Amino acid sequence: MSKQIGKKISLGVCYYPEHWGKEMWKDDLLRMLDHGIQTVRIAEFAWSKFELTEGQFTYDFFDEFLEIAKEVGMKVIFCTPTATPPAWLTKAYPEVLNKDINGVTYQHGGRRHYTYNSPKYIELCKRIVEKLALHYASHVSIIGWQIDNEINCHMDVFYSEADTHAFRAYIQEKYKTLHQLNEAWGTVFWNQTYTSWDEIDLPKRTPIATNNPHLMLDYIRFISESARRFVKMQSDILKKYIKKDDFITTNGMFDHLDNHQMSKESLDVFTYDSYPNFAYCLNQKAIPAKKLKDRNWSRNLTEVRSISPHFGIMEQQSGANGWNTQMETPAPKPGQMTLWTLQSIAHGADYVSFFRWRTCTIGTEMYWHGILDYSNRDTRRLKELKDLHHKIETIEEIVGSRYEARVGIIKDYDNVWDEEIDIWHKRINSVSEQGLFEALQGTHTPFDYIYLTDNTTLQQLQSYQVLFYPHAIIMTEQRARILKEYVCNGGKIIFGCHSSYKDINGKCVMLRLPGLLQDLTATDVEEYSFVALDDEPIEIEWEGERIEAKVFTDFMQPLGAGKVVGRYCSGEYEATPALIQHAYGKGEVYYFGSTFTEEVSRLFLRKLSLENPYEDYIRVPQECEIAVRSKEDKKYIFILNYSKKPVTVELKKEMLNMYHGKMEQGIVSLEGYGSRVFKCL
Amino acid sequence: MSKQIGKKISLGVCYYPEHWGKEMWKDDLLRMLDHGIQTVRIAEFAWSKFELTEGQFTYDFFDEFLEIAKEVGMKVIFCTPTATPPAWLTKAYPEVLNKDINGVTYQHGGRRHYTYNSPKYIELCKRIVEKLALHYASHVSIIGWQIDNEINCHMDVFYSEADTHAFRAYIQEKYKTLHQLNEAWGTVFWNQTYTSWDEIDLPKRTPIATNNPHLMLDYIRFISESARRFVKMQSDILKKYIKKDDFITTNGMFDHLDNHQMSKESLDVFTYDSYPNFAYCLNQKAIPAKKLKDRNWSRNLTEVRSISPHFGIMEQQSGANGWNTQMETPAPKPGQMTLWTLQSIAHGADYVSFFRWRTCTIGTEMYWHGILDYSNRDTRRLKELKDLHHKIETIEEIVGSRYEARVGIIKDYDNVWDEEIDIWHKRINSVSEQGLFEALQGTHTPFDYIYLTDNTTLQQLQSYQVLFYPHAIIMTEQRARILKEYVCNGGKIIFGCHSSYKDINGKCVMLRLPGLLQDLTATDVEEYSFVALDDEPIEIEWEGERIEAKVFTDFMQPLGAGKVVGRYCSGEYEATPALIQHAYGKGEVYYFGSTFTEEVSRLFLRKLSLENPYEDYIRVPQECEIAVRSKEDKKYIFILNYSKKPVTVELKKEMLNMYHGKMEQGIVSLEGYGSRVFKCL
Amino acid sequence: MSKQIGKKISLGVCYYPEHWGKEMWKDDLLRMLDHGIQTVRIAEFAWSKFELTEGQFTYDFFDEFLEIAKEVGMKVIFCTPTATPPAWLTKAYPEVLNKDINGVTYQHGGRRHYTYNSPKYIELCKRIVEKLALHYASHVSIIGWQIDNEINCHMDVFYSEADTHAFRAYIQEKYKTLHQLNEAWGTVFWNQTYTSWDEIDLPKRTPIATNNPHLMLDYIRFISESARRFVKMQSDILKKYIKKDDFITTNGMFDHLDNHQMSKESLDVFTYDSYPNFAYCLNQKAIPAKKLKDRNWSRNLTEVRSISPHFGIMEQQSGANGWNTQMETPAPKPGQMTLWTLQSIAHGADYVSFFRWRTCTIGTEMYWHGILDYSNRDTRRLKELKDLHHKIETIEEIVGSRYEARVGIIKDYDNVWDEEIDIWHKRINSVSEQGLFEALQGTHTPFDYIYLTDNTTLQQLQSYQVLFYPHAIIMTEQRARILKEYVCNGGKIIFGCHSSYKDINGKCVMLRLPGLLQDLTATDVEEYSFVALDDEPIEIEWEGERIEAKVFTDFMQPLGAGKVVGRYCSGEYEATPALIQHAYGKGEVYYFGSTFTEEVSRLFLRKLSLENPYEDYIRVPQECEIAVRSKEDKKYIFILNYSKKPVTVELKKEMLNMYHGKMEQGIVSLEGYGSRVFKCL
Repeated sequence: MSKQIGKKISLGVCYYPEHWGKEMWKDDLLRMLDHGIQTVRIAEFAWSKFELTEGQFTYDFFDEFLEIAKEVGMKVIFCTPTATPPAWLTKAYPEVLNKDINGVTYQHGGRRHYTYNSPKYIELCKRIVEKLALHYASHVSIIGWQIDNEINCHMDVFYSEADTHAFRAYIQEKYKTLHQLNEAWGTVFWNQTYTSWDEIDLPKRTPIATNNPHLMLDYIRFISESARRFVKMQSDILKKYIKKDDFITTNGMFDHLDNHQMSKESLDVFTYDSYPNFAYCLNQKAIPAKKLKDRNWSRNLTEVRSISPHFGIMEQQSGANGWNTQMETPAPKPGQMTLWTLQSIAHGADYVSFFRWRTCTIGTEMYWHGILDYSNRDTRRLKELKDLHHKIETIEEIVGSRYEARVGIIKDYDNVWDEEIDIWHKRINSVSEQGLFEALQGTHTPFDYIYLTDNTTLQQLQSYQVLFYPHAIIMTEQRARILKEYVCNGGKIIFGCHSSYKDINGKCVMLRLPGLLQDLTATDVEEYSFVALDDEPIEIEWEGERIEAKVFTDFMQPLGAGKVVGRYCSGEYEATPALIQHAYGKGEVYYFGSTFTEEVSRLFLRKLSLENPYEDYIRVPQECEIAVRSKEDKKYIFILNYSKKPVTVELKKEMLNMYHGKMEQGIVSLEGYGSRVFKCL
Repeated sequence: MSKQIGKKISLGVCYYPEHWGKEMWKDDLLRMLDHGIQTVRIAEFAWSKFELTEGQFTYDFFDEFLEIAKEVGMKVIFCTPTATPPAWLTKAYPEVLNKDINGVTYQHGGRRHYTYNSPKYIELCKRIVEKLALHYASHVSIIGWQIDNEINCHMDVFYSEADTHAFRAYIQEKYKTLHQLNEAWGTVFWNQTYTSWDEIDLPKRTPIATNNPHLMLDYIRFISESARRFVKMQSDILKKYIKKDDFITTNGMFDHLDNHQMSKESLDVFTYDSYPNFAYCLNQKAIPAKKLKDRNWSRNLTEVRSISPHFGIMEQQSGANGWNTQMETPAPKPGQMTLWTLQSIAHGADYVSFFRWRTCTIGTEMYWHGILDYSNRDTRRLKELKDLHHKIETIEEIVGSRYEARVGIIKDYDNVWDEEIDIWHKRINSVSEQGLFEALQGTHTPFDYIYLTDNTTLQQLQSYQVLFYPHAIIMTEQRARILKEYVCNGGKIIFGCHSSYKDINGKCVMLRLPGLLQDLTATDVEEYSFVALDDEPIEIEWEGERIEAKVFTDFMQPLGAGKVVGRYCSGEYEATPALIQHAYGKGEVYYFGSTFTEEVSRLFLRKLSLENPYEDYIRVPQECEIAVRSKEDKKYIFILNYSKKPVTVELKKEMLNMYHGKMEQGIVSLEGYGSRVFKCL
Repeated sequence: MSKQIGKKISLGVCYYPEHWGKEMWKDDLLRMLDHGIQTVRIAEFAWSKFELTEGQFTYDFFDEFLEIAKEVGMKVIFCTPTATPPAWLTKAYPEVLNKDINGVTYQHGGRRHYTYNSPKYIELCKRIVEKLALHYASHVSIIGWQIDNEINCHMDVFYSEADTHAFRAYIQEKYKTLHQLNEAWGTVFWNQTYTSWDEIDLPKRTPIATNNPHLMLDYIRFISESARRFVKMQSDILKKYIKKDDFITTNGMFDHLDNHQMSKESLDVFTYDSYPNFAYCLNQKAIPAKKLKDRNWSRNLTEVRSISPHFGIMEQQSGANGWNTQMETPAPKPGQMTLWTLQSIAHGADYVSFFRWRTCTIGTEMYWHGILDYSNRDTRRLKELKDLHHKIETIEEIVGSRYEARVGIIKDYDNVWDEEIDIWHKRINSVSEQGLFEALQGTHTPFDYIYLTDNTTLQQLQSYQVLFYPHAIIMTEQRARILKEYVCNGGKIIFGCHSSYKDINGKCVMLRLPGLLQDLTATDVEEYSFVALDDEPIEIEWEGERIEAKVFTDFMQPLGAGKVVGRYCSGEYEATPALIQHAYGKGEVYYFGSTFTEEVSRLFLRKLSLENPYEDYIRVPQECEIAVRSKEDKKYIFILNYSKKPVTVELKKEMLNMYHGKMEQGIVSLEGYGSRVFKCL
């Protein structure tokens, strides 16, 4: 992950040469360049343009395009086309198709209908990737390669025969003996004990829509590994052919995939597809409404940043999105395309490529609008692009600077995946995940996510003053140990309710809770319960402040040096400790017996003096996000106004408004959907 | 479609001789006759009564029934029994069964489980139809034939192997070459290009519950053609045998079927099944509540009238409807059966046959009540039938008169079907479809639907003073041309937002919008957007009146002689034109940048002086519908009171109350659920 | 059903030796004994512990456990392990697996995925049951046997090939000829006539999600018989081996199963699994909220009592329940475990076994908490168990006493099952079922359910002063006759709307309504209807009192000696009789033309002087339930407070508070979730 896209912040666009007459190509590219677009991504669904029938390869079509790109000076990101197998392929080799949980085969007509584990598909993918790399990789216009498209998008479960075989191989490799597997999966429960590897199947339909949860957890790990292997297979081929400075990436960040590991082993750059307009989908049943709307994408971008501090946006919203069968969204309001682009850059993007140049006139995505509409006319968004391009030019030096955060939230894939198969886990964690984010945004407190693994180093943690690990339900000795070290050395950690009651297989531990964290937290959880729907609100008092315990409650006692700082002050458990503080080494730990709602999270930020870290620089209203990137001794302060109404902002120091290059101080106004980037020395 | 059922308005009933002891037949028929029933429909689910085992034909059962009918003077409509294959047939030839999208075969036990495209089913249907026609067609009591029953009811998608083969043949016939097919379907999108006809499949399951939308559109056309071919196969056989004056019909009006074309090529009379009581279903999740409840069936009857100005009702509600597994409805209130019958006649029905004589004691339809309940006792509804019969006798001369309308709403199957596979289309059009209907009903403004095809003639359009074509999303040159001619010759057309951006394949056109209508509308749509859920209401001012733009907004500029008559007066696009008027030839065109809600539609009706065309004759309250049928110089004015409360009506001229044969004028009262027919010269 | 579990009220627990290290067994058992647990149930999911691979039987594991049980003096209920076939079994013989309605096979990974009708499964079950009985039955610690686990739980429909064959055999045995079958099922409807037994299939998918309702009714009867046969097969084997005083039981009460008949033919004791905490499930979409919450389990226990006046609870809630994929519930509040145990005993349980000892750390049920949590620590619930045990000791003499009720509600399986396949039936009956229960609870009026069969005796009915038969939709001559006898001899019966319009096959009768009950009720129902959603409330006046007719209305006239005591007093049917009283023999009958809402039911209880039968003994507030068990001349009065708040109770006579052995009279207080048992002589 050492490479980066360009030496300045720059803009690109997604383009489909195959959708338009060749006679339009040159005009399109020149018009892009005129509006500040320097790079196009091409070919991710174009397999048939290279291999229209099995084994017959042709390269003329994209050769011609690349020549025009070269002529006009447009840079190109080239894609491997494996996301959509050709019709001849799935007809000749139906075994490459994925199936649903009931055994129904997914047919040609959409995308991503293949399985990563089909030997035949792997063979044909290897061949096409090798052919394309061999033929195109030396082309001067090409600056990078995208593998496939949106790995695990739409579909992140697999039930083909090839998957069954691969799963058996995966677990045999992992557990070696059936005895160990039976132990790890707790198969003695409900008489699920396996006596032969052949008895093991994918988690298909059962009478009760449930399956062994420990098998399920390994199944998700298996899917992640299958996807990663598929990407690595392509990456290994590409590496043999691409030019020295060119990069390999893939786009999107989807479930059932260890994006961090995939990036580490196969990619030079991680790129994300950012569509904040989903927040405005008319069918809110499809896309649930959240309080912060498009601002929630800052959370996604923070996730991306946990993979890599700098990254690209391969698809950035530039028009209304929608399919003919799903998703109806309004067009972005004037200014929103710019706002969302700056949101991406503020969070660490050094390259932003819009999806798409011209709205497609055909197929499922005919409502996924680009910068241009169906006709070729100039649009309001094209004009906005030109203005945006000028803004980007004023801030292009920001490239390579790092997002600043003193607060970290710890996550890990074991818990992320366990949450998916465990509704108790999900009910608890989803409240805290959203509540913490809203509190951090509301108090203008930048933060990072850190994905904890058994390889995480103390140094990685020590760049944060405080860490939240809201509900570390699965915990390992290794992870407990590094958390202790972090605290010993002066860090602070805050844990929430029901922590550390599962092991790495998702089995519950026969330990007093919070299990492996009992020493560190000096806490003994004696009882616990969901909050009943008809309970009176349960309140906790924390040194004079009252907050409500929502969803779940731990009832606990301090151990050793543990100090009770909060107690339940209503309900059957009145006066029972609800928050225990533990000074440990140079640092301290809090164990909180409930979830981190926005209210609770704000109180933690206040009590720990974490909120508003830039208040000496700037004061902004609730509607605005503050993000700061820094490089050497320079701070770049981004202000993003997500509301349609103008707001005022107070600059407490003199700063350079990079958009127009003048110094500013005091009260300044910011238009609806407006943004500013200030430079401070 | 030249024939008609009877020379007077008359009543019939659906009867199932096979459900009741033979000893009951004669009594039943005599009792029907005594209550004004002149015709019975029989045999539509009786295949086993003719061919109990394969190839063994017997006719005695219905011979016996027909002899009794002849004896008592009851007329008979005889049905082909192809809607429900016998158990032996589907057991012996399971390939005749339809499948669902996942490949699950529909089994014996319901109805309509066959596919139109099974060669074996077609062979067996041909044989039974030929046998029945040969044997029964000459019988004196028979006056007409019904083909099958409710074509495309329940099930209007097909996924059997036979359908796959037929679909390939259909598209091969249509496109000749794969190149043309790939072009028409835009298969370059998502790498869907076909290289062999065998690669093409029905639109089965994909990972994303979506499929190529242009293929989908052709798939629906294919279903329509399959159904039409099946009906024509039977019609061609029947024509060889039926008596000269007898008619061929089929009943119902269902989706995925060009009822107009089917009627033209195969039927003498179109008959509809009218069940307004669906509006009162207790489970409103199953049958969505609409404001006008049973009065919405006037919209359905208007659809039927677009097929044929005169028609029959083969099944008219006469009791509570329901199945044991679906639909719970109250019994019709006293008066409603009569009201709904008059609703049918007002809209063009010359024959009304009730469903059913006696409520079935067995099977799924045991709650689909008839005039009699399970026991044979006289019911309140039987008494109401007698009274209704007397009313019908007073108006029987109305037969053959035409429904009067000066306003037309244009529809076409391409857009109707595109709406089904395109949720953007649907979101927009469904608002306008309902809004226009409610405004027209609310202002007592009769209207017709006109189904536009490439064969529509200028003359057909010219009987209307004003045409609404709410959202002509698919548009062809041919259709644009005739609309222009219509306006040139003095007509007025009103278009709504997002018109004319697709071609006949459902692909978007690379034209400035509204595409092929830009000349005619003198409008240039520069931008467009759904209205966001959290937008403030967006208002449009039209010469002093304010209306709200709902769901969608076009932002546009006038071209040439286009005159801005309405502008947005709030939101980001304040002052942008929202309604453009264009004088063209002798007529004029309006392009309105949003949807036709009831409020918007009412304003159009008022501004164009279309509302209340019969206000010189009669004044009725909101609860009542006015419908007028005319013949030569006579007007028959129907007043229908859909509310349970009595209302008063003002007759502004002296008219003949046909029910009692006296002249009336001034204020008259109308009982709850009451109706009147006035004759004016 | 002659045996009983123990000679005193006693406690047990469910235990899984196979889940825990052998070193824990003895400690666990001793700790149980120390807390009053005298019996453990074991081995219901342990097939693999006996037959790890096909045909290789080992007994050591449970031998060892039983020896420890014997050593410490713990009694054991041993289970047959047929609820969960081993992985080797379903792999080797996939034909034993059940399928869903679409033909998708249920896979290993859950439980109850087998079908009762697989010859291979029956063969293998016979063998394992025989082996276990032979080996273990003589062990001194064993006191009883449980067959399988929760018959028909999760899954009560079956679609495997084995079921198809068994169903054909079942109906061939039942109907002998196809002619009789075609008659019984009304197959003439929709041309469903069968001409060969092979044409008959299970009710699989049809295009309209419906099937022949009479076939459906027989299909449910077939499932019940299949399950009963499976249980009887095991019972017959066990009987050959078990010790004389040992009992055979199975646990749970599920649908599609004639629990009464099963008990009679195969069981010595019936045991139920009682989980009142379901009422507090956080996802109320999964478990619908009902007004009385956990108190609704008294209704379930009343159902259980209709099977047997004394019974056991095999699984009694002792902690939060939940799976990782379904059900999130709070922990029982302090006191609720005790309350629910007393609820079970009050209704007739003489043995209560908690589920489970220690919460399972593995598998789907990891959130189905036991008395202990995952760690082995003492819990609050363990302490509550000890206290509960002391309470139980004070009331242990109650064993064998009978629940007292003067009011009965008649049910029968034909109507219970018809309700499932008939939404009209369900819509009506579900209102009355809940309304009657709420009124009876609210007025502290104990009642019984009586399941009517053609074998029910007059004597069985005569122990009740009044019987409600809310909606006897299916009625037989035999049943009508015994009801008449009951009334003749002085009983009172109350019928609700739409009674007696179906025969035993679920076909409607061609009789004036209420059909076979017309004589008895002296009522002639002329018309009927659902109440429409937009109707004004329809009221009935009954001698000065007004009640609302909800959901359904019969419009009727008295016959002969029938006396109109209530009339509709609003709506179109104002003044039409709504309630007819008929003095018949020494008794009387009421026919009420609507449903038994709580309001209506309370009025009936008041008018018939049934409410509050213990008001001379005790006065309690709404929140409390009164239940009385009696033996010889002793009454044991249970008072159960379901609210979290303390209440006061007035003892109108001096009684013995059994918990502390002192006499009490007058106002006494009862803590939140508290209970008392008073003994009166």
